[in-house]
Amino acid sequence: MAERWTVRFGGFGGQGIVLSSVVTGLAAVYDGKYVCQRASYGSEARGGKCKSEVIISDEEISYPLIDKLQVLVIMSQQALDSYIEELEPGGLLIIDPDMVEETDKRKDVEILKVSAAKTADKLGNRIVANMIMLGALQAKTGIVSKDALIKSMKDSVASRFVEINEKAIESGEHIVEKLVVGDKTSSEG
Amino acid sequence: MAERWTVRFGGFGGQGIVLSSVVTGLAAVYDGKYVCQRASYGSEARGGKCKSEVIISDEEISYPLIDKLQVLVIMSQQALDSYIEELEPGGLLIIDPDMVEETDKRKDVEILKVSAAKTADKLGNRIVANMIMLGALQAKTGIVSKDALIKSMKDSVASRFVEINEKAIESGEHIVEKLVVGDKTSSEG
Repeated sequence: MAERWTVRFGGFGGQGIVLSSVVTGLAAVYDGKYVCQRASYGSEARGGKCKSEVIISDEEISYPLIDKLQVLVIMSQQALDSYIEELEPGGLLIIDPDMVEETDKRKDVEILKVSAAKTADKLGNRIVANMIMLGALQAKTGIVSKDALIKSMKDSVASRFVEINEKAIESGEHIVEKLVVGDKTSSEG
Repeated sequence: MAERWTVRFGGFGGQGIVLSSVVTGLAAVYDGKYVCQRASYGSEARGGKCKSEVIISDEEISYPLIDKLQVLVIMSQQALDSYIEELEPGGLLIIDPDMVEETDKRKDVEILKVSAAKTADKLGNRIVANMIMLGALQAKTGIVSKDALIKSMKDSVASRFVEINEKAIESGEHIVEKLVVGDKTSSEG
């Protein structure tokens, strides 16, 4: 059986939710994997509901239905409410605690809290919060290699934003390194 | 019944096939539409088989199976061979005639030939061939507005490439304007 990961990103328009799946997918390709990426959004460019997914496999895949959702990366309350039930038991929930209310709907998943928005503000631009999430996702799961993630990010963002996005990925990684992960783990980033 | 468009892009890695669907999808959002975008690719970043799709609707959609494929934008022979049968009767096939052999497998679809690669080379960078295809797609179908397409492109490419990508979109539009569209239509761009 091929190793296979499914990750969903949820938030609102303008948070870079589509880009998160594209960057993760391209990174996986750089790692030699096969990828199916998808996103659903509208009708407002900013503020509308947005989700995206990436499926990464050692073997060729076409457009599958999601059977198991192993990782859920959440940047809004609405996304949390909409998708929390779909995360598989034992799965990983990565949330920005400043963007969502505490949830105790699920006791059977691991929760990683990443203060992405606050950390992005400290770096100087809220827009890189998604890359902080990707850095944390990478460090926590190893679903893609760090080198591939950095390369993919560089391919995908405007050149003037490469430096701050690289810092954002590093910050996400540091948040994961600093904490002892568990159900009640939190971080200030 | 809501108006709904499904477009598939097919080619190989490095042609910007994923980006084509992302840019078209974001443009549709700027036009006030709902979008489902997806892509499948790997395992090589450059040269591997790649397809992407965008579904645009007046109404909210989640991840649907493709029931009708109305437009197929093709940038490689392999993609043409793989997807030509899925285009609905009366659908639109946009091909780069320099990247594919002549196909006469389908007599029941409209064929628009857009010399995207050659035109991109004239503009100075082969990488913008995908935007020439998008300019032609926009001009031919009106599936997204031109203003939204330009805005979406600007959001999605490195700032140093905005100017050449805008020229590429214009070039694609001009190719469509210059020709009388029909089964046997061709263009030199």
